[in-house]
Amino acid sequence: MRVVEYRGAGGADVIALAERPTPAPGPGEVLLKVAAAGVNRPDVQQRKGLYPPPPGVTDIPGLDVAGIVEAVAPDVTWPRPGDAVCALVSGGGYAEFCVVPAPQCMPVPRGFSFIEAATLPEVFFTAWNNVIWLGRLAEGETLLVQGGTSGVGLAAMQIGAQLRGATVLATSSSAEKQAVCRAMGATGVVDYREADWAEQLRALTGGRGIDVILDSQGGDYTAPEMGLLAPDGRLVLIASHRAPRAEISTRDIYIRRLTITGSTLRSRPPAYKGRIARELVDQVWPLLEDGRIRTHICGVHALEDVAAAQAVLDANAQIGKLVLRVSGMADHRPG
Amino acid sequence: MRVVEYRGAGGADVIALAERPTPAPGPGEVLLKVAAAGVNRPDVQQRKGLYPPPPGVTDIPGLDVAGIVEAVAPDVTWPRPGDAVCALVSGGGYAEFCVVPAPQCMPVPRGFSFIEAATLPEVFFTAWNNVIWLGRLAEGETLLVQGGTSGVGLAAMQIGAQLRGATVLATSSSAEKQAVCRAMGATGVVDYREADWAEQLRALTGGRGIDVILDSQGGDYTAPEMGLLAPDGRLVLIASHRAPRAEISTRDIYIRRLTITGSTLRSRPPAYKGRIARELVDQVWPLLEDGRIRTHICGVHALEDVAAAQAVLDANAQIGKLVLRVSGMADHRPG
Repeated sequence: MRVVEYRGAGGADVIALAERPTPAPGPGEVLLKVAAAGVNRPDVQQRKGLYPPPPGVTDIPGLDVAGIVEAVAPDVTWPRPGDAVCALVSGGGYAEFCVVPAPQCMPVPRGFSFIEAATLPEVFFTAWNNVIWLGRLAEGETLLVQGGTSGVGLAAMQIGAQLRGATVLATSSSAEKQAVCRAMGATGVVDYREADWAEQLRALTGGRGIDVILDSQGGDYTAPEMGLLAPDGRLVLIASHRAPRAEISTRDIYIRRLTITGSTLRSRPPAYKGRIARELVDQVWPLLEDGRIRTHICGVHALEDVAAAQAVLDANAQIGKLVLRVSGMADHRPG
Repeated sequence: MRVVEYRGAGGADVIALAERPTPAPGPGEVLLKVAAAGVNRPDVQQRKGLYPPPPGVTDIPGLDVAGIVEAVAPDVTWPRPGDAVCALVSGGGYAEFCVVPAPQCMPVPRGFSFIEAATLPEVFFTAWNNVIWLGRLAEGETLLVQGGTSGVGLAAMQIGAQLRGATVLATSSSAEKQAVCRAMGATGVVDYREADWAEQLRALTGGRGIDVILDSQGGDYTAPEMGLLAPDGRLVLIASHRAPRAEISTRDIYIRRLTITGSTLRSRPPAYKGRIARELVDQVWPLLEDGRIRTHICGVHALEDVAAAQAVLDANAQIGKLVLRVSGMADHRPG
């Protein structure tokens, strides 16, 4: 099969197309004929050598796939060969075939193309795990998404607004990005390049503060974010692009009962991801199918043009998701 | 009624006995004739001006009381006048009478004197709230209590060992304090004055790390504590005696899915404290009554000798709890 591989760590020059043997599904797994694959920031981090695949995981990048089930292990009851699914994988998405743990598969939402379906797993798994499970966003609370126009950010904002009736705030830089944040449910958007971004956000809450903050910046953002939290507020970290360390007020934590936590999904076991998949299909898929939650596609590239797709992320110019067209079925709407 | 009050902020010289009008219970409250009152570190912090009473709370210090219900508001169904109870209060314990929200009352455990009962509320409420609720200590996990021989520390260790079958580790300084930690369920005790205390603790876990850490130090303890946490581990802060700020690894938080959180109880509403009280009476009281969980009394002083009791805390010389004898009933065992 045709795959994308990284030959060393670095820029676009390490990206190469290659031929590898088609893998076979092990127990509990299915083999997917990939129609489209998502491109995510962790793929770029992996290319730079900053985010190696977990032990036992293929070195082929790619965390999002959509396609048709080609074969299943004998112990798999769902999905069945021929089913159109999308899935979160720990790696291997940039390829014509991909092995997927069965619990991580979800049906392609009705009316969605494979390209659209391939934009869903990584960002909605991540948003659900961090905003709903770890962040415990409750009905009517206030959610701040730092970097609102990332794929995860747009998913988190819509989950917050549509499923929790949350007041959603976001940070974003350009006017274009800010407009997308508003279209996805943010009622207040602040430019994080302005020195008083935290004060602007506090003012948007009438001084009350924010209940849940989803952040991928860390570093010098952490202390002002802690200061922005309302009593009992939760700061959920999914990356720390600004710096890996931060100074915090330990006193503030117990006086105002704040929580800092976070996660990455990649190393979690299939059973854990499967529980998220079931909640997404139950609670988010119906809203995707009726249009209340939308995916926002920034660009579609051929598999062999993955460098062009990653360049958009390298330039931090993306709004929403980048997708790779892997097979001729990519634009097909199976359901 | 006779009360203790602080005349300004400072050392023992600000402590004074005074006469004040006996308070009347408001809606949902009871008036307790205090037999014995606990002395806690927050009382010392309040004396120093570092921990003012929350808005609306009496300036009389004291968070723990045990005694006999003198009167109840019309809307209170339990306790009844004449009942022997102990209770957590937001202030006012250092007095002959004390007003208590009814949900915060608990029966004096069978066989306990009022002095013994007065040692229970503050430390068991705090340990339960932070180790069981916030720390979510689960069956068979590992619990580290920093400063094991504080009253809260001894309560937390016993709850962990007896109710969760946890492996309990503690830090403590003297040989005498370390022996008490072992008697209360700690299987490993490390002297925090030794430079490699964190490495010693890690070795005691076989390198695996700790699931829940209860800490009142903060500051430069926070980063090594985060390093000691096992994946999915929780650091729960209840004070930060070393320093109010700390540097942490934000990267570690999402890579290993760590949580930092914490609380103080004093400002929580009666309904919240009442939920803790009910769980304590259901789950901890039976073990106190059959001797599997014990209170450790460091010293008993007359109400007028409160300065002597606080001096033990000022010198960090306490093991377990200090108690004030407020009435002639203090040694009586009502049940």
